[in-house]
Amino acid sequence: MKFIDLKEFAKFDPNKPHRELLYDSPNLRVLSFNFEPGQELPVHCHESDSDVTLMVLEGEGEFLGTHAMPARAGTLQVMPVCDPHGLKATTRLRLLVFITPTL
Amino acid sequence: MKFIDLKEFAKFDPNKPHRELLYDSPNLRVLSFNFEPGQELPVHCHESDSDVTLMVLEGEGEFLGTHAMPARAGTLQVMPVCDPHGLKATTRLRLLVFITPTL
Repeated sequence: MKFIDLKEFAKFDPNKPHRELLYDSPNLRVLSFNFEPGQELPVHCHESDSDVTLMVLEGEGEFLGTHAMPARAGTLQVMPVCDPHGLKATTRLRLLVFITPTL
Repeated sequence: MKFIDLKEFAKFDPNKPHRELLYDSPNLRVLSFNFEPGQELPVHCHESDSDVTLMVLEGEGEFLGTHAMPARAGTLQVMPVCDPHGLKATTRLRLLVFITPTL
């Protein structure tokens, strides 16, 4: 069992999104991304049958890519990881990413 | 793509935990459970190689089962779904459950 306390991962970097790997198994990878205003996860995709979940924990921004729309705390997008996806922060923003199964 | 806004699922039931299916694919099932104080997800397990993630969104309680420990907003347990697991709320508590892959 892996126990994760998200408050331990509230680190930000003025130069680039702060990224940490929280969990990794063949079934599931969980990543934490913390963004300063204006930082972004550029639009990208992977040729795989996996699903990706983007979950906004705190802050506001925009989901980017095929399914562009406003992003705010408590919203999630779940999609095939081959759909172009990304995120741009307009405030400080914390994001969890779930990749299922791991690529 | 499935868009989920967690504030739309903040329903509680005085008689039992309020459960909603938020997403379901072969790779991933996402369930929302909302508990009134004292309500619980009884300890259970499944014979499968899947992982289960218990993520507390709001409130306080106890993770039950093999990995019993305090549960509060912003904490997660990730484990094989065959490890006995559950949760009891001491305050109003909101939980997301990710099953990867779907059983």
